[in-house]
Amino acid sequence: MREFILFSRKGRTDGNFRTLRDAGFLDTVHQCILTSIFKSHGHRKDVVFHAILGGPPNPPKHLEIRGDELQDASIDERSWEKILKNVLKGKSHPGITVKSGSLQSLIKEKAEQGGQIFVLEEKGADISEVKFDEHCVFVLGDHIGIPKKDEGFVLRHGEKLSLGKEKYLAASCIDIVNFHIDRVRVRN
Amino acid sequence: MREFILFSRKGRTDGNFRTLRDAGFLDTVHQCILTSIFKSHGHRKDVVFHAILGGPPNPPKHLEIRGDELQDASIDERSWEKILKNVLKGKSHPGITVKSGSLQSLIKEKAEQGGQIFVLEEKGADISEVKFDEHCVFVLGDHIGIPKKDEGFVLRHGEKLSLGKEKYLAASCIDIVNFHIDRVRVRN
Repeated sequence: MREFILFSRKGRTDGNFRTLRDAGFLDTVHQCILTSIFKSHGHRKDVVFHAILGGPPNPPKHLEIRGDELQDASIDERSWEKILKNVLKGKSHPGITVKSGSLQSLIKEKAEQGGQIFVLEEKGADISEVKFDEHCVFVLGDHIGIPKKDEGFVLRHGEKLSLGKEKYLAASCIDIVNFHIDRVRVRN
Repeated sequence: MREFILFSRKGRTDGNFRTLRDAGFLDTVHQCILTSIFKSHGHRKDVVFHAILGGPPNPPKHLEIRGDELQDASIDERSWEKILKNVLKGKSHPGITVKSGSLQSLIKEKAEQGGQIFVLEEKGADISEVKFDEHCVFVLGDHIGIPKKDEGFVLRHGEKLSLGKEKYLAASCIDIVNFHIDRVRVRN
């Protein structure tokens, strides 16, 4: 199991918005869903994507998308505009859940499940030098970043992981991690 | 200089469309622009992105986006819906050009400029074993793929490059190539 947790500090927590961009940068959440879950012609069955939404009116919300259960979802932003509006209004969609929940409670749950937890940061262990367990969990922020207090909490349960000196988009970080672990798994 | 060329077989060649998805999967073009050009808080100045659009009404069109000249562009699909509509209608935008032009004529130009040309394909040389020149050009298709005749032409000027057995989205392939070359450049 591979899990990605995006902290979306301003991501709107109801379905009352026009575009994902207007909704506290939920466009970044869409892009991270894409690179976490979608391959060409299919989904990654072993990936779960989470976003913690910290925007108005009811933060924090925990959005979870399971690659093995997701259905009826195209890759484009307009499709996800509809899907995210609906699930944030309380409607159901296969493979997607929304509930109240903070980053700290999610990390606590993953630590109890034995997940190997990483925060993506420039000053961490280089990805090429880390040995990944079967169940690994990657935490990252959007361009606004993770509050220091929350990052401190995550690091009590995990460690920093670096992709080098370049500053990549959150969605690109996920592509890079997925590719790296795909290759490690093939070699082992 | 690093260049990416996406062959969008059905990508619409005028600005008369509602959404990028409706326009022959121009949403994939948007996603590839993102992963080619955008980093967190900035553009890649050394990257040029090209799309060859093969859809109605006036194919083929050659869309070019220069990372060093691009301005006034956010990362979300809705913004690019407007930008691509405008440039396909003949309006100007800093860093973007649209003209008539086929994949073969573009490849011929890049070969004459001395670019090292690759087509992304499973059965190629593994990315970890290839030595990249300063000026490299990566050709890839969307989920529909590159016509055999065109691929044959490109391969007369270049070689196949493999990212392994996984079938990634076109945008993810670009993230992977960018990351790999970023790291190679740092090590050298």
